[in-house]
Amino acid sequence: MRVKITLAANFMFVGAAFAQTSQVQGPVSSSGMTLFGVADAAIAYGTGSIASKTQLVSGANTLSRLGFRGTEALGGGLGVNFWLEAGYNADDGSGVAGNTNNTPAGATSGDAISFNRRATVSLIDVWGELRLGRDFTAIYRNREQPDPFGNNGAGTSMAQAATLGGPTSTRASNMIGYFLPPGLGGFFGEVQYFMGEQISFSPAITPNLKDGDGYAARIGYGIGPFGVAIASGTTKFAQTSSTGDIKVVNVGAFYDFGFLKLSGGYYRDKVESFVPVTGTGYLVGGTIPVGVDQVRVSYSEYGTDEVGSPRSRKFAIGYVYNFSKRTAAYATYAHLSNSGGASRALNGSLTDPDRSSNGYDLGLRHSF
Amino acid sequence: MRVKITLAANFMFVGAAFAQTSQVQGPVSSSGMTLFGVADAAIAYGTGSIASKTQLVSGANTLSRLGFRGTEALGGGLGVNFWLEAGYNADDGSGVAGNTNNTPAGATSGDAISFNRRATVSLIDVWGELRLGRDFTAIYRNREQPDPFGNNGAGTSMAQAATLGGPTSTRASNMIGYFLPPGLGGFFGEVQYFMGEQISFSPAITPNLKDGDGYAARIGYGIGPFGVAIASGTTKFAQTSSTGDIKVVNVGAFYDFGFLKLSGGYYRDKVESFVPVTGTGYLVGGTIPVGVDQVRVSYSEYGTDEVGSPRSRKFAIGYVYNFSKRTAAYATYAHLSNSGGASRALNGSLTDPDRSSNGYDLGLRHSF
Amino acid sequence: MRVKITLAANFMFVGAAFAQTSQVQGPVSSSGMTLFGVADAAIAYGTGSIASKTQLVSGANTLSRLGFRGTEALGGGLGVNFWLEAGYNADDGSGVAGNTNNTPAGATSGDAISFNRRATVSLIDVWGELRLGRDFTAIYRNREQPDPFGNNGAGTSMAQAATLGGPTSTRASNMIGYFLPPGLGGFFGEVQYFMGEQISFSPAITPNLKDGDGYAARIGYGIGPFGVAIASGTTKFAQTSSTGDIKVVNVGAFYDFGFLKLSGGYYRDKVESFVPVTGTGYLVGGTIPVGVDQVRVSYSEYGTDEVGSPRSRKFAIGYVYNFSKRTAAYATYAHLSNSGGASRALNGSLTDPDRSSNGYDLGLRHSF
Repeated sequence: MRVKITLAANFMFVGAAFAQTSQVQGPVSSSGMTLFGVADAAIAYGTGSIASKTQLVSGANTLSRLGFRGTEALGGGLGVNFWLEAGYNADDGSGVAGNTNNTPAGATSGDAISFNRRATVSLIDVWGELRLGRDFTAIYRNREQPDPFGNNGAGTSMAQAATLGGPTSTRASNMIGYFLPPGLGGFFGEVQYFMGEQISFSPAITPNLKDGDGYAARIGYGIGPFGVAIASGTTKFAQTSSTGDIKVVNVGAFYDFGFLKLSGGYYRDKVESFVPVTGTGYLVGGTIPVGVDQVRVSYSEYGTDEVGSPRSRKFAIGYVYNFSKRTAAYATYAHLSNSGGASRALNGSLTDPDRSSNGYDLGLRHSF
Repeated sequence: MRVKITLAANFMFVGAAFAQTSQVQGPVSSSGMTLFGVADAAIAYGTGSIASKTQLVSGANTLSRLGFRGTEALGGGLGVNFWLEAGYNADDGSGVAGNTNNTPAGATSGDAISFNRRATVSLIDVWGELRLGRDFTAIYRNREQPDPFGNNGAGTSMAQAATLGGPTSTRASNMIGYFLPPGLGGFFGEVQYFMGEQISFSPAITPNLKDGDGYAARIGYGIGPFGVAIASGTTKFAQTSSTGDIKVVNVGAFYDFGFLKLSGGYYRDKVESFVPVTGTGYLVGGTIPVGVDQVRVSYSEYGTDEVGSPRSRKFAIGYVYNFSKRTAAYATYAHLSNSGGASRALNGSLTDPDRSSNGYDLGLRHSF
Repeated sequence: MRVKITLAANFMFVGAAFAQTSQVQGPVSSSGMTLFGVADAAIAYGTGSIASKTQLVSGANTLSRLGFRGTEALGGGLGVNFWLEAGYNADDGSGVAGNTNNTPAGATSGDAISFNRRATVSLIDVWGELRLGRDFTAIYRNREQPDPFGNNGAGTSMAQAATLGGPTSTRASNMIGYFLPPGLGGFFGEVQYFMGEQISFSPAITPNLKDGDGYAARIGYGIGPFGVAIASGTTKFAQTSSTGDIKVVNVGAFYDFGFLKLSGGYYRDKVESFVPVTGTGYLVGGTIPVGVDQVRVSYSEYGTDEVGSPRSRKFAIGYVYNFSKRTAAYATYAHLSNSGGASRALNGSLTDPDRSSNGYDLGLRHSF
């Protein structure tokens, strides 16, 4: 799916595109430090059966961020990379919460700036990349990459908006990751181990807490206009009536016909609480180039096997008007419908169970 | 009053000068990213009838900050600008609190760095600038610009120190602003709408909360040595015995005689609580060039119509010794007197009602 | 000890090396702004008699940081310098706590980034440097500089790990410092006054609080392969059963034989609580160059005169494999033993009183 990113990300992911595997460039030959970021603000309006809301929001096209990164070539094809990326809210200047140990207790305040998006140091050579720190989990990429809306704004996929994946569904801290190098005939992949950093009593108190420990992997194949990837991961939590180990598996794929890039994903998340809960969903998306602009459209569903089988469906359509490679205006409309007792709503609105909600974004995004 | 800034800010506002309207430069023709900031620390001493205090303080000449900004020319006179500016305390390295929704409940922790001073993304063309995000409110500029001390340190004007203007008296988040372009024969102006992002129930719960919603505007004329501006704004809050809609109107003006830049302002803030409270004040200031240095002097008052008509008066005089355009040492003395039961005091000291207080600053300011 | 830093810091202190006195470079002749930092992550394992722990940690070789600094030459040998340095955790992207008034009450949240490591503005000329803001205390340097492990990771000296020195043992805010200039025939020194910024009642409430006020000084001599320095400082706290004025005195020295740099330190910290407590310790360290790499070894002790005379001893050995001047891999092993009822443990493990603990670090450090 790396190829997909290269083709589709065009203007959307300055900064973010590199966040996947682009640092695995084989022999490293350049050094230097780069400042980068995104400033994205949008007027967002949401309606539901109970209440509506109007906001200025941040990142409805691409999440706002400020980052610092650099690479040093160490000779012999070896290199080292650092990457510090802080999310911020372009509507009010505040920061975005992170998490120090992959559990609800490790959540940090989002009042101010931290490197919540990424804080890594990597060794890179022809054998691949060893990456240490906080980063996306492998299981996140199949949610983000097939989504024409990149999981941002009113159009974000239901699998992202409603996932049961828990604290590590998007990122994990205390992570040791390995990425395959490029040049494997289209194959790419990564494995990750991350730590909740609980203490281990000896002799063991039964059972020893391992909350926040986990692992994830993703493998894929991308060549020419086609790409597919599968990912799986587990994060451990002590079993209670509401939580337990979380097991995720998902698949993403795309085919670029030129006039249309078709993408899709299937998602399954299981929480092994006393009575296990499984969530499943899928996405079908399309990105249609219109000159240098883009029409984006997607349909996605996500629901669980809880009583009543609550489920939400979303249809989203948007237009991205590209002033330049770095700057765009965009508009998105999304309609969300609920069933089985679900009451999800868009853009801060409130809706009754089984009622629908509409969301509208109108924004400006600048990458720097 | 833009012209005033250009003339008077000289060494004081590297970084800050641009915070007003300087991004409205008509057709944009340059790109790039700039890091900028101010490091300003001062020994501050205050005395009052109850207690005195000695501190190292930050920003007694210009508030300490670190910022990132840049502009991209989009062709055809169109441009985009981003601006991220974080306040910090030069005495201890901590951050400065912001506010996410323009209400007391939206205040953030100041422990760490956020873009509390400004976080904006703008579209700029010959018709003016559309600015989204967190920024100064229009009603702030007539307090800051006529004040020879720029609202900083012991010399800050009483209208700034004692304003009833509430959470949006200086800045607002979730703001949509528009600035007139330059080249209008000396006229300049801006309008702003900002959102508290409360939820709107339907059918409406009477009354729907609109706390933190508001609007402001400022219009002025500046040519040659003269400038004048008027501003007005309203921020909505549910009416209680202590708060309610806050309505602000103020005027600022200056005339630069060369050997003296005379400035003045009049301020009126009304809080529409059950028993409304109105605060009024004025400022008369002078900035006297002494070679490359400056003598600053001001007299200001602010008081309310509450029982006893509490009122405070301040006389301040200071000297700014400019090592260079970027670096200065400065000293300020201020004397504050209270009447009507007011008990304001300077630099962290405490004073009894109707007693006076003195403040002294001795500092070093470097802009980078 | 400045010379020592220059010789020994080689790869260890990009960024940090300057944090001592290197800005006192006599007549300043260059201007500009520099971004710098360190990204250091390690797998850390600790064992004790009760429990073990495995973590990804930050800064086991050099503390992770991001900084901004610059110097402006003002002519006539005069210069101004600013320095903003933020610690962060390379394992999770969060910030590191600071302190606004040198007392436990002034501790800030470490969730996000602040300039907790250093926030200063300085005037520098041939007479030395006047430095205002938050910085290391003079009494810290004799702990950090003789330690082959730089007070970081499992190998950090016991005098650092167990010091009674309180909130100002490493840094202080609201500080006015003066550094001697270089070129004094090998002599160097600094004095510091820092403020807790308590209020002073008049007539004085007996006793007036002075918590967090303090002063410190350090003087030394370094020439050729040899250096020695002595430091002393006092921080005031109201006397209780558990705290009171904290008085610190320590000595550090080194001699570089070429094949071995031998270093040592002696430490004494006294807390003047109702029943005073005194802590004492020492360090003997060696740094052995192996080509461009380094073997580090140290033995250190620290204990107090509390009941039972609790005391901890540590032996540490490590290897630093330098990929380049900026990048290294490193491994450290440390063994800690307790007596007199002490129960200190390494790397997050837990151990019973008088039992031992082992710590292991394996990490990657990149300076940028």
